[in-house]
Order: sequence, then structure tokens, then C-alpha cells
Amino acid sequence: MIFEHSEKVKNLQNKLYAFMEEHVYPNEKVFEQQLNDQHDRWRQIPSIMEELKQKAKDEGLWNLFLPDNKYGAGLTNVEYAPLCEIMGRSLIAPEVFNCSAPDTGNMEVLVRYGSDEQKEKWLKPLLSGDIRSCFSMTEPDVASSDATNIEMDIKGHGDHYVIHGRKWWSSGAGDPRCKISIVMGKTNMDASRHEQQSMILVPLDTPGVKIERMLPVFGYDDAPHGHAEITFDQVRVPKENIILGEGKGFAIAQGRLGPGRIHHCMRLIGLAERSLEELCKRVQKRSAFGQPLSKQGVIKEWIADSRVEIEQARLLTLKAAYMMDTVGNKKAKKEIAMIKVVAPSMALRVIDRAIQAFGAAGVSDDAPLARFWATARTLRIADGPDEVHKAQIAKLELNDWN
Amino acid sequence: MIFEHSEKVKNLQNKLYAFMEEHVYPNEKVFEQQLNDQHDRWRQIPSIMEELKQKAKDEGLWNLFLPDNKYGAGLTNVEYAPLCEIMGRSLIAPEVFNCSAPDTGNMEVLVRYGSDEQKEKWLKPLLSGDIRSCFSMTEPDVASSDATNIEMDIKGHGDHYVIHGRKWWSSGAGDPRCKISIVMGKTNMDASRHEQQSMILVPLDTPGVKIERMLPVFGYDDAPHGHAEITFDQVRVPKENIILGEGKGFAIAQGRLGPGRIHHCMRLIGLAERSLEELCKRVQKRSAFGQPLSKQGVIKEWIADSRVEIEQARLLTLKAAYMMDTVGNKKAKKEIAMIKVVAPSMALRVIDRAIQAFGAAGVSDDAPLARFWATARTLRIADGPDEVHKAQIAKLELNDWN
Amino acid sequence: MIFEHSEKVKNLQNKLYAFMEEHVYPNEKVFEQQLNDQHDRWRQIPSIMEELKQKAKDEGLWNLFLPDNKYGAGLTNVEYAPLCEIMGRSLIAPEVFNCSAPDTGNMEVLVRYGSDEQKEKWLKPLLSGDIRSCFSMTEPDVASSDATNIEMDIKGHGDHYVIHGRKWWSSGAGDPRCKISIVMGKTNMDASRHEQQSMILVPLDTPGVKIERMLPVFGYDDAPHGHAEITFDQVRVPKENIILGEGKGFAIAQGRLGPGRIHHCMRLIGLAERSLEELCKRVQKRSAFGQPLSKQGVIKEWIADSRVEIEQARLLTLKAAYMMDTVGNKKAKKEIAMIKVVAPSMALRVIDRAIQAFGAAGVSDDAPLARFWATARTLRIADGPDEVHKAQIAKLELNDWN
Amino acid sequence: MIFEHSEKVKNLQNKLYAFMEEHVYPNEKVFEQQLNDQHDRWRQIPSIMEELKQKAKDEGLWNLFLPDNKYGAGLTNVEYAPLCEIMGRSLIAPEVFNCSAPDTGNMEVLVRYGSDEQKEKWLKPLLSGDIRSCFSMTEPDVASSDATNIEMDIKGHGDHYVIHGRKWWSSGAGDPRCKISIVMGKTNMDASRHEQQSMILVPLDTPGVKIERMLPVFGYDDAPHGHAEITFDQVRVPKENIILGEGKGFAIAQGRLGPGRIHHCMRLIGLAERSLEELCKRVQKRSAFGQPLSKQGVIKEWIADSRVEIEQARLLTLKAAYMMDTVGNKKAKKEIAMIKVVAPSMALRVIDRAIQAFGAAGVSDDAPLARFWATARTLRIADGPDEVHKAQIAKLELNDWN
Repeated sequence: MIFEHSEKVKNLQNKLYAFMEEHVYPNEKVFEQQLNDQHDRWRQIPSIMEELKQKAKDEGLWNLFLPDNKYGAGLTNVEYAPLCEIMGRSLIAPEVFNCSAPDTGNMEVLVRYGSDEQKEKWLKPLLSGDIRSCFSMTEPDVASSDATNIEMDIKGHGDHYVIHGRKWWSSGAGDPRCKISIVMGKTNMDASRHEQQSMILVPLDTPGVKIERMLPVFGYDDAPHGHAEITFDQVRVPKENIILGEGKGFAIAQGRLGPGRIHHCMRLIGLAERSLEELCKRVQKRSAFGQPLSKQGVIKEWIADSRVEIEQARLLTLKAAYMMDTVGNKKAKKEIAMIKVVAPSMALRVIDRAIQAFGAAGVSDDAPLARFWATARTLRIADGPDEVHKAQIAKLELNDWN
Repeated sequence: MIFEHSEKVKNLQNKLYAFMEEHVYPNEKVFEQQLNDQHDRWRQIPSIMEELKQKAKDEGLWNLFLPDNKYGAGLTNVEYAPLCEIMGRSLIAPEVFNCSAPDTGNMEVLVRYGSDEQKEKWLKPLLSGDIRSCFSMTEPDVASSDATNIEMDIKGHGDHYVIHGRKWWSSGAGDPRCKISIVMGKTNMDASRHEQQSMILVPLDTPGVKIERMLPVFGYDDAPHGHAEITFDQVRVPKENIILGEGKGFAIAQGRLGPGRIHHCMRLIGLAERSLEELCKRVQKRSAFGQPLSKQGVIKEWIADSRVEIEQARLLTLKAAYMMDTVGNKKAKKEIAMIKVVAPSMALRVIDRAIQAFGAAGVSDDAPLARFWATARTLRIADGPDEVHKAQIAKLELNDWN
Repeated sequence: MIFEHSEKVKNLQNKLYAFMEEHVYPNEKVFEQQLNDQHDRWRQIPSIMEELKQKAKDEGLWNLFLPDNKYGAGLTNVEYAPLCEIMGRSLIAPEVFNCSAPDTGNMEVLVRYGSDEQKEKWLKPLLSGDIRSCFSMTEPDVASSDATNIEMDIKGHGDHYVIHGRKWWSSGAGDPRCKISIVMGKTNMDASRHEQQSMILVPLDTPGVKIERMLPVFGYDDAPHGHAEITFDQVRVPKENIILGEGKGFAIAQGRLGPGRIHHCMRLIGLAERSLEELCKRVQKRSAFGQPLSKQGVIKEWIADSRVEIEQARLLTLKAAYMMDTVGNKKAKKEIAMIKVVAPSMALRVIDRAIQAFGAAGVSDDAPLARFWATARTLRIADGPDEVHKAQIAKLELNDWN
Repeated sequence: MIFEHSEKVKNLQNKLYAFMEEHVYPNEKVFEQQLNDQHDRWRQIPSIMEELKQKAKDEGLWNLFLPDNKYGAGLTNVEYAPLCEIMGRSLIAPEVFNCSAPDTGNMEVLVRYGSDEQKEKWLKPLLSGDIRSCFSMTEPDVASSDATNIEMDIKGHGDHYVIHGRKWWSSGAGDPRCKISIVMGKTNMDASRHEQQSMILVPLDTPGVKIERMLPVFGYDDAPHGHAEITFDQVRVPKENIILGEGKGFAIAQGRLGPGRIHHCMRLIGLAERSLEELCKRVQKRSAFGQPLSKQGVIKEWIADSRVEIEQARLLTLKAAYMMDTVGNKKAKKEIAMIKVVAPSMALRVIDRAIQAFGAAGVSDDAPLARFWATARTLRIADGPDEVHKAQIAKLELNDWN
């Protein structure tokens, strides 16, 4: 039982902290400004982003998420966790280090399950940060928390598949650099429940693929990344675009979602940590009723509650990461479900307290908090709503006692 | 102890319910569409709004908020509460009935404290819905939860006052029809703590008044209404623009805020009620894991918790309204503080459950819920943050036992 | 919509308040002392109780719970609520005024459904306070939250019924004056689900009735009242002891439980109100870290939260009472379920805050709070656990929207 | 970052688990029965306890709490944590292994600060389990959460000290084997705030020491251990009974309370873990409304929430233990405060859910849950109330950002 990171990790932490201070935080407003200076927030990626990516690459802070030694940094989940947390402190940071969702998940899928050709064509430019990708699983017409509800049709015709259906919340599809989607659909309605689905690579410029609209999140467009509703109207792609083979969609999804979920949690801890820092600074600068806000008992309680909640969630994340590293994602499913339930709610409470401490500034964009909150709120739903994960935890728990 | 509304009120409720069904709900998306169809969401008021206002006027559903018989509907707070709640079910509705903040508060101030000339010039066009107004109290540089912190300077010079300072969250100032602001500032730094402030009428086209920017709320611009940061740079207005007299600002604020606060609460109850309705409809339409969401125990708990929380908040609002009607706003200050603490948090919980039940649709604009949530969230801060009201309640409570 | 009690009620409130101050509070410790002075806390009723009962009778504060004009005070539920609340402020008070559970519920059953003979034999001495009674419904071997689970057997044999089974939580059976139990069992296993049960009067001295043990509640024995586990071993009672007729048990239970539940809630509000009063007094007397506890922000928050929670629960109780008075217990079932869910949890939160403010004294018997808490805790289970009531509320709510 | 215990610890865990199954759980009711079989629950220690102690000693499961190699097992805090948790699963277990409060804290004080003579006289028989001890710090007349409030007077007179004052919550003083108290008082009112206090050894049979009464906790007497109110009326003890020297009381208290607090937390995790186990077993055995309780969504939510809360609290406890082991108790004060705030509330929530799942059995003594709850509740107060620890955490946190 050792609660300390290795020297390797500490060094990377220090480098990341310094990079964030020097390059990321000061450029958050620059990024937003460059977006706003365009006629259309979706047209172009703010140039500052490519500059920052180059800097990160130069410093070796690149693809740290990828446990694979050949393609990425080869860090374990436990090693990556504290680094991912630091990146999570700014909404623009993960992309700077090529560690942003859904690309990370897509890259992992390609590393693990992709054919050599798929790797060459899609993994390489993703790893270099030249293109981006999206993941099309959720559908507007069914409760997608139950993955067996998915209706998208993928039919084989000779050397092609024909894909037909509607997806939404394909995050990242708004980005002009987004070239490829991993699409989940059903190749065989008659197979057993968990072998009906397949995953297939669909280039976004394939005829029949249409971005219908970009969905806002609590009023934020999240440009240039964005969340797309996409129709696939009899879209034809070659057979070799299938990943791993027909009927493997559910299995890949399970493999993909473990790391994806825990990365979200690591980032949320960073988000919460930064919010608490903002709160602590603010309440020492403002006074009301004759004393600094920091002297007021209720605010002290907010700080203490935030600290204990963050710390516990961080430890649980690390424990889950440790389990993934030691017994594998499948056996760690209870721990993954646990942290997926804990981290978003924890972050929401901490951020909300910070908003309250900031008063009116907190709900506006002068502080980063309102957008932090909106981002965290989606994660009580994305990758499985709380209720589904809790039911899963309970089921596993009950199994121990029956 | 009678828990029923009078026949007069029931009739008005029925008329309002019918009006909402027929005219308001179907036009929420029309309003938003007309805003978006403009090059600039701030340029013009969607024409549907003026059409709806005319219809409401024609049906006598106009200025119901104003307890004054001469200028308004002459309803008591208890009578107005259930009507205001209905209007609160749609974010565009209050304006349709000329019952939207901050105009309602401003009109009340003018009715109660305005000179005949002020009434003629500003009250009349506000009552007819021809112009709109804003209220400039909060300042960016101080914790405005403590009103004695206010720094805006109002200096008499001959027959003019010269106003200098910076305000923000002047809601409604974005509207092209917004012509006048009631501004709070200090006329006498040497007076006792509660007699330093004055309120003064400042036409927005006065030289030196500049809208610096519009503040977003969780990503929403709230156009065309909006929330403005305004600088007042040596702004000169005639002495007769002062309301009630120098040093009366704090007293007017107290009078203004009581009804203002409870109106917010009434609307929040409507917002929560509609959210619960949306939740109940949704969960009967969607299925996951083999049964409708409505059969799942956790969702039943959300519904039950929402129902008991709404009902209790409604009763407390009505009780506070009753106290205001019977013992006056001043003696009802504990009840007003209580409901101001209760209603926003209650609404946030109910709306949040509805969002969760809607899944991804809940955080987007397909459902009205995300924007409802953002609106409700501001009300844990606006008109005094929860903490300040709670301290007030505790103080009054402790007084009973020392 | 009138939030004031009638003059009649106000007069009774004043009489009750005075009686509590003069006779009840000062005798709480006397009652406990007299119990402890006996060799056995179950042997005898402390003499102070009979003295207080006589005083209450003399002042006309007797049987106020009974809406029936002939046998009781003839008050409506709305009229009784604020009076019951006052009695609820002391755990010994309800009996003083002959308004304590389960006798009140039993008396109501007899008034409404009892035969003339049953009234003569059992109702009369209960009304005069000469005997006490218990109610035997819950069973140890099944989840009694679902009343159809009940297993006790009642079989007709000639002019007798033979009763066989085991009951627990027959509260009040420990009292030496307790002479009669209303027992719920099944007379016909083949009838439809809600017509299998019957209620029958069983004198506790009937051969075969055996009190097996008294159950503690969080360490409290609740002597001399107590909570009994009782076996009924082939107990024979004459056929005329059945109430209303075979198969009517479920219907009577529904009629009985409505008033029973709301009375519990009224008393809980009194309990919470007294706890808040104790808290407010305490924190003004104690100092830590250089100031009275009452100046500390967190404690002010406890007070404010308690006040708003009590007030809301009280209003909801009154609303439910009003519904029972105006549309009847059956149509008021949603309101009754709502208050049954709200009041115990509210009281527990308020009492728990008071305990915390009292520190170590709070968990001991120096303050009345720990026992208040234990009492309130049982009411999240008794007369239907929260979960069952919430499911009921949700079902009724969903019905409005399908 | 390693989340696994050493082989040494795993072996001890296995031995303890086996011992608990074989010897402790089956004897919980025996212990209670032996207590009840006496005329007076305070007279004698149930014989089963001495038998179990001997067995534990024989198996080397003795004094595991003591980090000192010479006198105890020499385990680190991290090593002891999972063992202490197991002992915490039964209220009678800690004494079986000679690891129960307040003896553990007292032994630690003597090991660290006691003179050779004090060790010989008091430490040895405590280590062997021949006598027991209590700790007299809290006073009834002041808010003892602020240790500077303490009023007990310790005056030097020649070769003696004269001790005068009143203490309460001297836990363990009810035990006939309890021979010695460590008493905290003030030797010098004029010294600086944290050097006024001293700790002194007072044999309970010294003239002038009088146990006034035993205080119940939520109705439980906690016999034969118990919680005493003790008066010290001009009690004379020799000068050599002072520990470490005059004015060292506060410093010793700080040293003593760190381990004391974390031991409580370790045990609370065991208590919560056992409660969750009881819950899981129960809900699979009971049915209502046509299905086992374990299939009901709300109950699944209770289970999941309990699991994530326990797991997080456990990790935080281990982290705090690790800090104590690596940077020392003083530098770990934030972590100690954090876990002291987290563990009792967590345990209370988990136990309360188990109570609710057990229904009426849960509040009685048929399940161990009600008493678990009462025990856990005291720990939101004992060794510093939550509020004080939270203020401490906030202060340390704010220091990082000013």
C-alpha cells in the first residue's frame, strides 16, 4: 500500500504543471477570442491550438494516454491518472497533448483491434494530431443507455457494407479536421443479444453522411469540436472497414469504454481541483458584511467538503486504474462503474460551490466555472447514466452475498 | 385555514392555462427561430412576441402582477401567485402578459414612489408594454450581496446629478425597446449606512451611458433581453429623476425586492412543475432493459421526491404571499427570505432529475430543461445569495429565543 | 386561501400551550423517575400520568383527536393538526390528553365500524382513559410493508374464531392497563387479494395470547408502553368480536391508517419544533473559539434549514388534513402519502442538527433529543416505509400524464 | 502507487477473519446474555470476554494497534488499518484483541511519554489486558470542542497535586476492571493558551474520585464499559503522576488524538462494511409486491451508494495512515481531520440504509444495526465535532492560496 507516484510520474507531473502555467491557462481566452473573431465559430481551428500542440510535442508531452509502447507513451493507467488530471484542469488542454476524447478511445480501438491497413490509414494521422475523429454510437430515437436498443443497420452487399440510420452526440464531428467516425450498428438482428453489433470505420466525406446539426450543451456550442447529429443514408463503405469482424461491436465497446470512462474521471478531478483553487482565491479577495468571505463559516464548510470529496474521488480513480492495470479492464468493471458514478457528481458539487462563491461572475464566462459545470453535467449521462452504473454495482455486490 | 383559491382566481387560472396551451407553448420554438433568423440575435424583437402580447391584452391577461387597482389588476399576492406560476412555465410567457422582471419591479417602484411626472413619462409606456426597462444595482467590483458595498457615485451639481460608475447584470438592457434604467448609487457617503443610497432614473440614451457587453448565463445569451455590463461615465440627468428623494435608495430596494423575490419563486414553481410533467411523459415513452423507464424504482423515487418538494415550496410561497398581504412586506421578511432560499434549490433539483431522465436530450436544447436549469441557477444568487438569506432567517429565529 | 386558524382553534392552542408549560414539561423527568423508582419499569404506570390525565380532562383537553361529535371533540383534521402538533412536543403528552397511538386509531375504528356491543365494551373505557389497547398487524416473518403478505390465520369454528400466528411491534402491549388488541389476519385465503383479511378484537387475557418479549428501539424500551412480540396460539374468541365482518380487514386498515399517519406527522412537527427551540437556546449559551456558537455560520445554516423544512412540512400536513376534510381520506391518499414521506425525514434532520449542537449532551438523556430521534426514525418504517409511499405517489403522478 | 497489502498483513487479515467467524460473531449474543443474566449489568464482565481474550492472545492477535516494537506488534498505521477494520465489524471485538478505545490511546501515551515507573505500574497491566483505563478530558459545563475551554484545576501542593473539577464521557469507567484515568486539567492559567494544560494519572480508587452516573447513548448503556460522569473533589495524587511535565497536556493530546481518531475511522469502515453485508443478505431473503427486495431499483441504489461511499472512505483512511507513517502525525493533520469528518457520516448513511432495508427489525436489537448507528453517531461529536475539523481543513486549504 503505497500512496506515492514514481519518480517518472513526478517528473511528468512537474513538466505538465509548468506547461499548463506557461502555455495553457494564459491562452484559454486567446483560443476563445480566435474562435469568436471568425465569422463562424466552426470554420477554422484557432491557430493557437496548433502552436500549443507543437510545443507539447516538442516537450514529449504527447499521446501520454496510450498504454501501448509502440504507438504511445506506454504508461500504465496508474501512471497516466495524475497526468490526465492535470490536463483536465483546462477544457482546451487535452487536445494540446493529443489526449482528448473521443480520439483517445478511437486510437485505442485501432491499436488493439485495427487491421494494419486501418492503422496506417487512420491511426497514424490521429497519433500525429493531423486529423481528428468521432464516435457514433448514441441514437436519438432509443434509450441508448441500453446498448441493445441500438437500431442503426449495417448490411453486407458484396464487397461493401451499407449503413443506414441516425446518430447523435457524435462529439468532435464539428471540427474541420474530423475525418473519420467509428460507427456502431447492427449487422445481424438474429444473433444473440451481444453479438448483433459491429463497429465500422466511416470517413465523414462518404456520400450519404450528413451532419444535420450541432447540439448545444447548456447553451454552449463547444465549437469547434461540437456534438453532431448525423444521418447515414445508405452509406457504402468497403468491407475492410469493419473493425475486428462482424458481431464484435459490443465486445469492442466494452474494451473501449473502460479507459474512456476513467479518463473522463481523471479529467473531472482536475476540473474540480481547479474550481476549488479558484474558490479559495476568490473568497480571500472579496468582503461582505465586514469580513472576507473566507472567514464565513458556511464558506469554510464548502471548502472542507470539496477537499474531502475531491480527495476521495481521486483515490477511487487511482484504485480503479490500479485494478485495470493488474487484473484487467473486465475484472475491474465494478471499480470502473464506481468511479464513473462518483466523479461527475463530485465535480458538479465542487464546481457549484465555486459558482456560488463567485456570485454573478460564476454563472457568466468571466470565470470558467459555468462551462466546467455544463461539461461535468454531461458526464452523468455520457458513457452510461449513473442509474445504469449503480444497478451494475449493486448486481455485482449482491452476487457476493447470495 | 383554507387551501383553495377564490372563483375569480380559478377563472383566471383557466384562462391562463388555455392561453398557454393555445398560444405560448407552440410558439416557444417560433420565438427562438425568429431570433436566429436575424443576422444578430439582439437586433429586433421576434414579431411573434408583439402578436402574443396583443392577444393577452385582448383577453384581459395583462399587468396581473400589479396590486394597484388604478394601474394594474389589483390582485393580492395570494391571488397572483397561482397565475404567476402558470406564466413561469415558459420562459417567454411572462413578457407576453407584461409580467416579466425587472419591469414588474420597476413599475411597482414607480407606482409607489414615483412623481406624477415620472409616472407619466416612464410608468405609462411600461404598463402598455411599449418600452422596457432595466435595474442597475449590482456592481462587478464588490460583493453586492452586501448592498452597503455599492460604490456608484451620484453627485448633485446645480439642477443635475452626475452619475459615475460601473454596473453589471442589468438584465433586459439588451432589448432594443429598453429605454430606461433605475440606477442605485450613493449620494452621500457620510450618511448612516442605510441612508447613503439613492435610486435615480437614467434614460439609456443619455450621453455617457455605454453598454460594454452582454453577459452569458451558462452559455445562454438570453437574447434579446440579455444581461448587460454598463458603464456610466459622468452621466448627467436632471434632479427630478431621483426617486422619492436622496437617501431613500435602500428603503425603496427593500420595498422593491420583497415582491420581486416572491415573483421569482412563483415562476420557479411553474418551471419545476413543467419539468416534472416533461419527465413523467418522457419516462412512459422510453424503454431500457426490457421495461419503460417509468417502471424503474429509481425514477419513481425521482418523481415522488419532485412532487413533494414542489408541493411544499408552493405552499410556502403562498404562505409568504399571504403574510405580505396581511401583515405587510416588512413583517413578512422572514417568510420572504425562506421562500427565496427554498424555491431555486427545489427547482434545480426537479429540473436536474428531468434532465437525467431525458438523457442526452436533456442537456441540449431539444428539451427546454437545460435552459430552465441555467435560469433557476442564477436565482440562488440574484436578489441575494442563499447564504445571506439563511443568515437572516437564523437571526430572526434566534431573536425568538434569547 | 387563508393561512390562519379559527378563533376556536387559537383558543385551544393557547390552553394547550399553557398546559404544556405548567404541567407537562416539568413532569417529563418526574415520569421517568417514577418509572425508574420501580423495581421493574413495566410494572406500574407512574402516578403522575393519571394526575395529568385528570387535569387535562378537567380542562376539556380530552379526546380532541376524535372527529366524531358524539364521542369526541368533533374537530376537523385541519382544526386538530395544530393541537396535535403541540401535544407532539413531549413524548409523554399525547397520553395525557388521551390522544396517543395506537389507541386513537383503535377508537376511530370502533367509532366507525364497531357494533354497539363492541363500543360499549371497549370504546367506552378507551374514551375515558381507563384502559389502553394495541394493534397487531405487523409480523416478524414477512415483509409487512406489503399487507397482502400477512400470514396470521383466523378460522371460524361454530360460534368462535380460532386465531393462530405471531405478531410483533404491537405497541402499547407492555402497559399493564392494555386490555385489548385489534388483530389483523386472514379469514379466507381464497378470496381476492384485498378481501382475505379481517380485523378481530382479542382481549389480551384470552388463553393462548402470550407476550413473548418487548422490543427495544435504539436501546429505548419505551416503557411502560413498549413494543411487544405476541404469539397467538389457537386463541378462541366469540364470533361477535369480528369488526364489520369477514374480509373487511384491508378496507378498515385503509380507513384507519389515513388519520393514523397524519397524526404521526403532526406530532413530528411538534417534535422538530421543540428540537429547534432547544438548539436555538443552547447555541446562545455556549461559546467556543471566542464567540457564542450562535454566531458561527454553519450553525446559522442549521437553524435556517431547520426553519424552512419545518415550515414546509407543516404546511403540507395542513394541506393533507384539508384534503381529508374536504374530499375524504380516500381521495386524499396522495397527500397522505406525501406527508408520511416528508415529516419523519424532516424531523430526523432537524433533531440531528440539534443533537450536533448539543455535543455529547445531545446523544445522552440529558437532552430529550436522542430519544426524539429514535422515535422519529421508526416512523420512516411504521405505517409503511418511505419507499412504498414514494412508489404510490409516483404511480398517481404518472397516471396524470399517460 | 500500490493498492495492495503486504503478505504479512494479508496473513493477519485471514487470521482475523477466521477468528471473527469462529469466535466473535457467534458470541455477540452470548456476551449480551451474560450481561443480562446478572442482577446488574455493571457488576461483572461476562466470562466469555476473558475466554475470547485468551484465545486471541494465544493466536498472537494481541496489541496489534501499538506501533512500538518493544511493547506491541510494531505495525505501521497502514498495516494496522485493514486489521482494525476487521475488529470494527463487531462492537465486542476490539476488546477481545486488546485494541479498544480508550485503552489504546492511553497505552500509546504511556509508551511515548510515560516515565519508567508509570510504565511499570500502568502500562504493563494494560498491555496484558488485566486492567482497563479511561480518559477524562471533556467537561459538562463548557464547549469542550475548544480544548482551551477546559476548567479542571490541577494545583501543586508540595509533593502532591490537588485535582478539582468535573468530567463526563469518561468512557470505560463503568468497567469493574477500570483502575486508572488519564485526566486533563489546567496547571497554570497564566501560561500561553496551549501550555496551560497538563495530563495526570489518577487511580480511580483515590479518595475524592466519584462516579456520579453512567450516561446512556441513544438509550444504550454500553455496559459494562459505559460512559461516566466523574467528580474530582480535591483529589490528591503524588507529583510523579504527571505525564511528561506541567504544561504538556495540549501537546500530548495532539499526539494522542491522531491515532485515536484514525482508529475510530478504521473501525467505522468495518461497521459499515458489515452493515452492507447484512443489507445484501436481507434483501435477497425478503419479498414484497411480488419480487425480492433486491430487485427493487431503490434498494439497488442504496447498495451502490453504500459501496462507493465505503470504498472511498477506506481509501482516504489508508491515505491518512500512510501520511502518518511517512511524514508524521503533525504534518498529516489535514488528512486526519479529513477522515475524521468523512468516516462517521459515511457509516451513518450506510447503516441507516441497512436499517431501512430491515424494516422494524432494524430499529430493534434483533439486528445489530441500531446500536451500530448509535455508536457511529457519537463519533460525529467525540474527538472533535465535524464542524471543528472542517474549519481546520478549510484553514489549511486556504493557506495554500493566499
